[in-house]
Amino acid sequence: MQMPGPARYVMAARLAKRLVLSCFLTTAAAPALAAGELLWNPLDPDNTVYLELQEGTVVIELNPVFAPKTVKQFKKLLSERFYQGLSFYRVIDGFVAQAGDESDIGKASKIPTLEAEFQIDWPTRPRDKNKAKNWQPLSWTPVQKGDPFAPYTGFIDGFPAARDKETGGKAWLTHCPGTFAMARNDGADTGRTDFYIVIGQAPRYLDRNLTIFGRVVWGMDVVQRIKRGPTLKNGIIVKDLDRSWIKSMRLASSLDPAQRLDIWVADTNSEGFKQMLRARRDRNDKFFHHKPPAVLDICQVPVPVRLEN
Amino acid sequence: MQMPGPARYVMAARLAKRLVLSCFLTTAAAPALAAGELLWNPLDPDNTVYLELQEGTVVIELNPVFAPKTVKQFKKLLSERFYQGLSFYRVIDGFVAQAGDESDIGKASKIPTLEAEFQIDWPTRPRDKNKAKNWQPLSWTPVQKGDPFAPYTGFIDGFPAARDKETGGKAWLTHCPGTFAMARNDGADTGRTDFYIVIGQAPRYLDRNLTIFGRVVWGMDVVQRIKRGPTLKNGIIVKDLDRSWIKSMRLASSLDPAQRLDIWVADTNSEGFKQMLRARRDRNDKFFHHKPPAVLDICQVPVPVRLEN
Repeated sequence: MQMPGPARYVMAARLAKRLVLSCFLTTAAAPALAAGELLWNPLDPDNTVYLELQEGTVVIELNPVFAPKTVKQFKKLLSERFYQGLSFYRVIDGFVAQAGDESDIGKASKIPTLEAEFQIDWPTRPRDKNKAKNWQPLSWTPVQKGDPFAPYTGFIDGFPAARDKETGGKAWLTHCPGTFAMARNDGADTGRTDFYIVIGQAPRYLDRNLTIFGRVVWGMDVVQRIKRGPTLKNGIIVKDLDRSWIKSMRLASSLDPAQRLDIWVADTNSEGFKQMLRARRDRNDKFFHHKPPAVLDICQVPVPVRLEN
Repeated sequence: MQMPGPARYVMAARLAKRLVLSCFLTTAAAPALAAGELLWNPLDPDNTVYLELQEGTVVIELNPVFAPKTVKQFKKLLSERFYQGLSFYRVIDGFVAQAGDESDIGKASKIPTLEAEFQIDWPTRPRDKNKAKNWQPLSWTPVQKGDPFAPYTGFIDGFPAARDKETGGKAWLTHCPGTFAMARNDGADTGRTDFYIVIGQAPRYLDRNLTIFGRVVWGMDVVQRIKRGPTLKNGIIVKDLDRSWIKSMRLASSLDPAQRLDIWVADTNSEGFKQMLRARRDRNDKFFHHKPPAVLDICQVPVPVRLEN
């Protein structure tokens, strides 16, 4: 059977209980599934990064929809093995771990600065029929209306995101634990190579102020072992020995398939995921003696990930 | 000079710039200070716990105001070196690290179960004059009105907390990264020895459902290195070698003073801290091209801590 789209695992919502391998071509196939089924997607090797540290392996999913220019330049740097031998030089526990060529803190760099990609216009169907033919709508799985930091939050293909309007308007990726973003100076267009990973309580006040271009999908425990700097000195780590170093940072598609991890990410558009959202919002479990308010923090909704052997 | 209260450091709000040692008997002395000064408090050795792991040292501040019974039994266990040789047997990255005698997952235990201490009545001045003489009001530094999970959030002597009314009403400690709480089964009064530390995005839906009785004040980077269990199997770690073990867990007052760390915690009642709150809420820095909403997440406000040599 010819498969133009990625293969997908389908799984009962009760995680890891029953595993049925099945093939669906697009999300459009989902309605054919029994209610509550959770779809699993593989990662696209052309938008997946393997970050190898002394501490272990971290897998990052890039997001070219929200940050096409940043992702393009970043991939070029990866192909040049730019990050190999660089380090996490600014690490503040509970906040961010930052790595790169240190141009963000004043070191000279020949890498071009990047245009800010803080938010996008919600994509609407082109009026031109030819353009409309290949046009793909963005998916949106709503999570919270009236979030403190945004009018609407939700998931866009696995990524925590926010919008200013229910239809149309602006959309942006939110700063949650595991968020992968480009550091910059005061100027909006001053990012270059230095990226950061959020390692603590979501610093949502940074939303729409920095270019988020990916998220950690595997190895946050590894990221949490990255060596910290002094919090009261802005996290800057002076001594080489006190830093965590990048052994390699490469695009999955440049690796031998045997070297890649067989990672499957829950489809945030699938009915099973939406059912998980409902169960988290409305907690009827007898464990809860005080019923929590029916609200969801977009950064406190885990997107399940599985590693197949 | 006789000092009935703890000595305090006073410091200009610009952290670590100018350090002036000074003695104040109570917070009431604060108005005599120049505006914006940040007070620092030492930890009370009778309510401070040293948790020694292979990964390093963690310092926890207990809260007997909110959980007097839990703290009392916990201190008794510490004095018996109960936790020495026990392990973190349930660890879910981004959620909690749980340790103890595993009675929470069904192991037999002779330790008595604890009464739930999920919230307190806001203490009001006793009508009886004699009782009122020694009565101490609770401090409250407001952070957010209309937080998604509580009508009011704020700090109570360094602890992130919430209330249902602006005056009086109920008060409770909130689940934030670093929160130290007692695990339990479905019954409210089933906690015993198994505690957990929050290691990820604040699970605020647990507020008022578990007894929070402390917070990590030093060594969250160490906590973040605790070995994780499999997320899809509820974090339970089967093999001994895959777990992080407790070398010792003792009350600071039982340690030789020379063995203790000289830790100072920012006073959340001090004018300097309130100034920090205002600056975080109203971000006028030129770094911000999109001005963030003027809201504060109680769990995303770091309480500064310093280690003196």
